Amino acid sequence: MTALNPTHDPARRSWIESANQPDTDFPIQNLPFGAFERDGEPRAGVAIGEHVVDLRALRDSGLVEAGSDAAIACEAAADGTLNRLMAMEPRYASALRAALSDLLKSDAPQRARVDEQVRALLPRVDEVALRLACEVGDYTDFLTSLHHTERHGRYKGLADPLPPAFKSLPIAYHGRASSLRVSGGEVRRPHGQYRDANGQIVFGPAPALDFELECAAWIGRGNALTQPIPIDAAHEHIFGYSLLNDWSAKSIQWFEQVLGPFLGKSFHSSLSPWIVTAEALAPFRKAPVPRAKDDPPLMAHLNGAFDQQHGGLHLELSAHLSTAQLREAGSAPVRITQTHLDNLYWTFAQMVAHHTSNGCNLRTGDLLGSGTISGAADEARACITELTNAGKDPLRLPNGETRTALEDGDEIVLGARATKPGAVSIGFGECRGRIAPAFAFAEQRVETPA
Amino acid sequence: MTALNPTHDPARRSWIESANQPDTDFPIQNLPFGAFERDGEPRAGVAIGEHVVDLRALRDSGLVEAGSDAAIACEAAADGTLNRLMAMEPRYASALRAALSDLLKSDAPQRARVDEQVRALLPRVDEVALRLACEVGDYTDFLTSLHHTERHGRYKGLADPLPPAFKSLPIAYHGRASSLRVSGGEVRRPHGQYRDANGQIVFGPAPALDFELECAAWIGRGNALTQPIPIDAAHEHIFGYSLLNDWSAKSIQWFEQVLGPFLGKSFHSSLSPWIVTAEALAPFRKAPVPRAKDDPPLMAHLNGAFDQQHGGLHLELSAHLSTAQLREAGSAPVRITQTHLDNLYWTFAQMVAHHTSNGCNLRTGDLLGSGTISGAADEARACITELTNAGKDPLRLPNGETRTALEDGDEIVLGARATKPGAVSIGFGECRGRIAPAFAFAEQRVETPA
Repeated sequence: MTALNPTHDPARRSWIESANQPDTDFPIQNLPFGAFERDGEPRAGVAIGEHVVDLRALRDSGLVEAGSDAAIACEAAADGTLNRLMAMEPRYASALRAALSDLLKSDAPQRARVDEQVRALLPRVDEVALRLACEVGDYTDFLTSLHHTERHGRYKGLADPLPPAFKSLPIAYHGRASSLRVSGGEVRRPHGQYRDANGQIVFGPAPALDFELECAAWIGRGNALTQPIPIDAAHEHIFGYSLLNDWSAKSIQWFEQVLGPFLGKSFHSSLSPWIVTAEALAPFRKAPVPRAKDDPPLMAHLNGAFDQQHGGLHLELSAHLSTAQLREAGSAPVRITQTHLDNLYWTFAQMVAHHTSNGCNLRTGDLLGSGTISGAADEARACITELTNAGKDPLRLPNGETRTALEDGDEIVLGARATKPGAVSIGFGECRGRIAPAFAFAEQRVETPA
Repeated sequence: MTALNPTHDPARRSWIESANQPDTDFPIQNLPFGAFERDGEPRAGVAIGEHVVDLRALRDSGLVEAGSDAAIACEAAADGTLNRLMAMEPRYASALRAALSDLLKSDAPQRARVDEQVRALLPRVDEVALRLACEVGDYTDFLTSLHHTERHGRYKGLADPLPPAFKSLPIAYHGRASSLRVSGGEVRRPHGQYRDANGQIVFGPAPALDFELECAAWIGRGNALTQPIPIDAAHEHIFGYSLLNDWSAKSIQWFEQVLGPFLGKSFHSSLSPWIVTAEALAPFRKAPVPRAKDDPPLMAHLNGAFDQQHGGLHLELSAHLSTAQLREAGSAPVRITQTHLDNLYWTFAQMVAHHTSNGCNLRTGDLLGSGTISGAADEARACITELTNAGKDPLRLPNGETRTALEDGDEIVLGARATKPGAVSIGFGECRGRIAPAFAFAEQRVETPA
């Protein structure tokens, strides 16, 4: 299947030169979907190099064959949101990516016609304001890294640091959809209740802010209530993936947590702007890391033949930290985490199958976060809590600064690249956010959002 | 304020006779908002006795003064959803209720003109299909009954059955919005993983199904991210209230719960169809039950002058159970719970203020469940787990049947009435659901919802 799809052809290059640079996240083999604002209006688009294809302009251009699946896909996205397109059978988005690949390749027959309308069709991505890629109904966050879970269990002093259910099912909780935001801009330090150094319960700006590096799957077609998605069909329901920074106010979380995370997370979660499609990632599929011999057997409803062979991805992920001092000195951000999707104990298809096994309905645009993707190695610890051994071993930056938590002005940039010999590497684009100081509580005004 | 609002006038009666019956939930003083389907199209409406005012038909009727606040409100609801109306300043919904009260009162000057269009304007509620009242963005469920929390802590054998945070903040978790359903119809028993009597982890139909009687607040106007709603403004953000049955698969929940409830709840949650407005409930406001003398002091951001005086409601709530055997014998449902909103330790305004205290944004249509409203008295236990002392003392029905959990065919009906001397009592309508047997897992097919 993979070999037949011309959008995967590693020999294909684009006449857009920025898409051919070896370090670009968006070569012609990627073509991820996203949303942006242009002239004050919402638009859906596809990233290519340093540009973005405006899908409404594309629809109006006459460049896509009328009545074709690609044209139908383009029309579905013309209102500026991706939800309708994501809800359709996968062949529509697939046809649109194939049509775009043909328009953007070096030897595109229609190159001259694209050039005539290039300003309307292909704005530079830095000329537009990126938006959240689609409307999220429900957001679920999982806990699927054994190392992340085990380390946190040890910090809590648990005799068995791994919860009994961990190897039987992908543990999860419902997250807050309203405070999901696209990468960029400020992450305001939240107020909250927590115990201070004397054990007193106080209310104030949360002292212990952390990032958590995650990968998130976007649901394409959903399922009806009472109708679970079988593990063998689960991959077909995943439209694509983005990076997720699950910012965490640990001091709030430790105090509040009885029924799971709540205000410790719901102040802001950041997503990278582009949905890298499952189709573009198909050449990077791999078998997930096998379960250990003494792990409990995998239950039938989580055990899929395709998933056991192809449910993982050759995907490397990283986190970089820059501080106000580093930026002032003109120093580059410091890489603090380098990890791999192999560090998940469960696949995204298993998350989908488990999530719906009770009949719960997923809807188009629902988001499934992987949980923090920490590995066994020190460099693969994917949050500051782990990187500092729960604060005992402060993070030391090259300029002498130390951190046990994020300080105001600190900026985290997450990245991810799928890489495999023989394939053109594709990236996720960045998921960036900078901590802004808490508002004084009295400064806060209630504004009704537009 | 209350005395001046003619919609509260206890002397007002309606020319719709079913609205004047002493046991009706929907006298002319109530006028709650809801949604329904008519001729295959979504409509917004207002309940009156056994009828519902079709707001699109009302807009088209010429009976509401053009350009008035009431007409603007009517227009906002004409697309069949309430979200736009709920997002507006409260005076619009208020004007619409006042206009309806004037059209429906016994001596309405426009009675004859209403009569001419009565079939279009006022279908019987049993002639239409009720829908979920509005589109829910995020659904949050709280845990605010001290007695419910304490009993469950004791069942778990905790030394201190009340979590340390309970009296400092209203504990909550994010719930699943996609599986919220309007009252009525079947609640399909879910599959899930749980430990059987031998301690083995199995996957199958969940044996321990329970109901949980809750009251839920609907958010009207929202707030922007980073801008908390002060406790003194919180009441203005609550559009109204409904009943919520937070069906729970306890066997699943006990096994899965690490980061809070997930599949043990997300298979189905039921809401009563009508949003009883905060305005209609204003005559029933009361001071919340005072905190005990040795409770920790209330923090400033949860301590509102209005809320401390008027943050409670004279609201009695009940649950009735009927079984297949009872129905076969023609026996009436058995009342198993009789409780009061006074059994909440926190007010809804405190839930709003806490929820947004970290800057989390609430959106119009967001739903805040109170948690199970159990009281100290045996009759005020609001779920079967408590009613049976965690299964030790089975519930005995008049026909000799016993229950430690809900069985297939069991039906739960929740009800609530606001009552106060000198005011006309208003009700919430029912929140009904009947347990249907689990599908065989192989019978389940993936269907893409319409």
